[in-house]
Amino acid sequence: MSIAYKIGYHVHRQHEIWQELITGSQVCIVTDETVAALYLSDLQPLLQHYQCSTVTLPQGDSHKTLDSWLSIIDTLVRDQHYRTTTVIALGGGVVGDTAGFAAACYQRGVSLIQVPTTLLAQVDAAIGGKTGINYQDIKNLLGVFYNPKAVIIDSCFLSTLPEREFRAGLAEVIKYGLIADAAFLDYLTQHVQAILSREPSALTYIVAHCGAIKQAIVAQDMLDTQDVRARLNFGHTFAHALESVMQYTLLHGEAVAWGMRQACALSQRLGYLSASEVLRVEQLLQCYGLPIELPTGVTTCALLAWMRKDKKNTSAHMTFVVLERLGCAKIRHDVQVMAHDAETFDYTVP
Amino acid sequence: MSIAYKIGYHVHRQHEIWQELITGSQVCIVTDETVAALYLSDLQPLLQHYQCSTVTLPQGDSHKTLDSWLSIIDTLVRDQHYRTTTVIALGGGVVGDTAGFAAACYQRGVSLIQVPTTLLAQVDAAIGGKTGINYQDIKNLLGVFYNPKAVIIDSCFLSTLPEREFRAGLAEVIKYGLIADAAFLDYLTQHVQAILSREPSALTYIVAHCGAIKQAIVAQDMLDTQDVRARLNFGHTFAHALESVMQYTLLHGEAVAWGMRQACALSQRLGYLSASEVLRVEQLLQCYGLPIELPTGVTTCALLAWMRKDKKNTSAHMTFVVLERLGCAKIRHDVQVMAHDAETFDYTVP
Repeated sequence: MSIAYKIGYHVHRQHEIWQELITGSQVCIVTDETVAALYLSDLQPLLQHYQCSTVTLPQGDSHKTLDSWLSIIDTLVRDQHYRTTTVIALGGGVVGDTAGFAAACYQRGVSLIQVPTTLLAQVDAAIGGKTGINYQDIKNLLGVFYNPKAVIIDSCFLSTLPEREFRAGLAEVIKYGLIADAAFLDYLTQHVQAILSREPSALTYIVAHCGAIKQAIVAQDMLDTQDVRARLNFGHTFAHALESVMQYTLLHGEAVAWGMRQACALSQRLGYLSASEVLRVEQLLQCYGLPIELPTGVTTCALLAWMRKDKKNTSAHMTFVVLERLGCAKIRHDVQVMAHDAETFDYTVP
Repeated sequence: MSIAYKIGYHVHRQHEIWQELITGSQVCIVTDETVAALYLSDLQPLLQHYQCSTVTLPQGDSHKTLDSWLSIIDTLVRDQHYRTTTVIALGGGVVGDTAGFAAACYQRGVSLIQVPTTLLAQVDAAIGGKTGINYQDIKNLLGVFYNPKAVIIDSCFLSTLPEREFRAGLAEVIKYGLIADAAFLDYLTQHVQAILSREPSALTYIVAHCGAIKQAIVAQDMLDTQDVRARLNFGHTFAHALESVMQYTLLHGEAVAWGMRQACALSQRLGYLSASEVLRVEQLLQCYGLPIELPTGVTTCALLAWMRKDKKNTSAHMTFVVLERLGCAKIRHDVQVMAHDAETFDYTVP
């Protein structure tokens, strides 16, 4: 079954899109407190011809839980939703992942429409069919692969995104240039002002372009078993460790920015990137206001302990995504990492 | 990814089968109290070269719950199972459905081997990729489609099955003949003694044959959306209502036997079956000691109330699986059912 992508400014306000995508007579909107206040009154009138339930989750990653998942299921049961119902996930990654997992499991799967409202969700979480919740303090421990029927990516939602969250999302945007498209890196270098001032045309272009890159990568390796989809984790082995050490006080994209810098340094150490290419990446990250220094008090030793626990390690060896050149990522399983000093890593390569 | 079927008497004791099917270094056996006492000591030595966890669920459908599902997940987390682990479901339908749903969701899916130990699970539950648990008193409300890597169907397990449970399983065996294979109905008519005395060769033949029929039907309609897989529900709309009214004191197969008799009567009413064909089905069910009369005190009115809630109804109209002829099922959405008197149904047909 193919996935419909609807991308544009104010695209979610088009009545005919909803008519085309919803085949049953029931819908269930899942959102969070912040997004509900901003956009729920926008969406509900468009769905007035359907029996419409609404679940509003508390805000934040700490609520990507079994309880939130069950609250969606309980609503579907209470309001007697059939297998023909459609779950609409209106929000960021937490809403999309939790609602997606609920839609996947309710009566063994009902229709799902992702309506991502953050930059991070628009370019990453809402594309690729990964759903899930955290459990026992482990991120995404429970989940399934489940494709939505459609993804509605409306850049108008980005106008209300807090500045820090918007910039953090740009880290993932830059990542797509680094791993898959050198020309897109040039675009990002040349349009810093248009993007940071959130010009609709620039935003629509970058979400459409990043979405297309992710779709192409996922299509080659839906179940993440072929070392292809794993390229999307560029910078993430470092980033996940930093997020854990900082107890999730950093935004994901902020940790990814620092992690990508580390992964570029490793790529240089492997002889792939030149010093000037690494410097160019660092400057681009800084142009977008992204952090590239290790926060005060965090040591490489503390990070290494977390990196060794990463879900992507298949055995004792660690997996690293590196850049063969700007715009082209590859996977290495043969690199060993150690602490050089409190702030920098060192590597042994066969 | 294709599913390996290993069928035979004592097939689960073959060391090389496990070596072939388990690719990682970890396994987690999920079973129930009854099966654990009979067969766990059989299986564990065969898996001594793997890191092996065991989860023993309480016995019975009332434990096909969120708590049982989480107890499997908790064990996988506690014993640090990687994404390369293999979940082995050793038991009946409750174990298979619950363990299958856990394997599907743990880290977005790990390998699953179904080892069904009841006749019902061998010919039905373990084949076709349906997993799930009951929730809020609704059967299989939560679940996903998730194919096992392999199904090991060992007819030796059937030697310890209680007589009543064995006979109930035969109702589903007869169902396959009715919906898909008239020659198999002849076989079942001619081999009553061999089957009821559980001769290994007869048992191996029927589980292999029913498995092949179910696989062929499922392959045409994995997600149960095409009115093909729905044929497997022959007799089940009636049976589910009876199970509910009787508060699950009847075995599923016993309810299905009565339900198939009703569905045959409807098929006769529609002009598909002759009176003598219906009589033949009734006699076959009785040969295998299956009940075909409505239990005392149950009325058609009570049953109708439950039938109208069936998950397979797509709207106000009820869905019935009927027989066009012996060995060939079809779906009708245009039949209305009502109570003729306290014990028999009446139908209106367009």
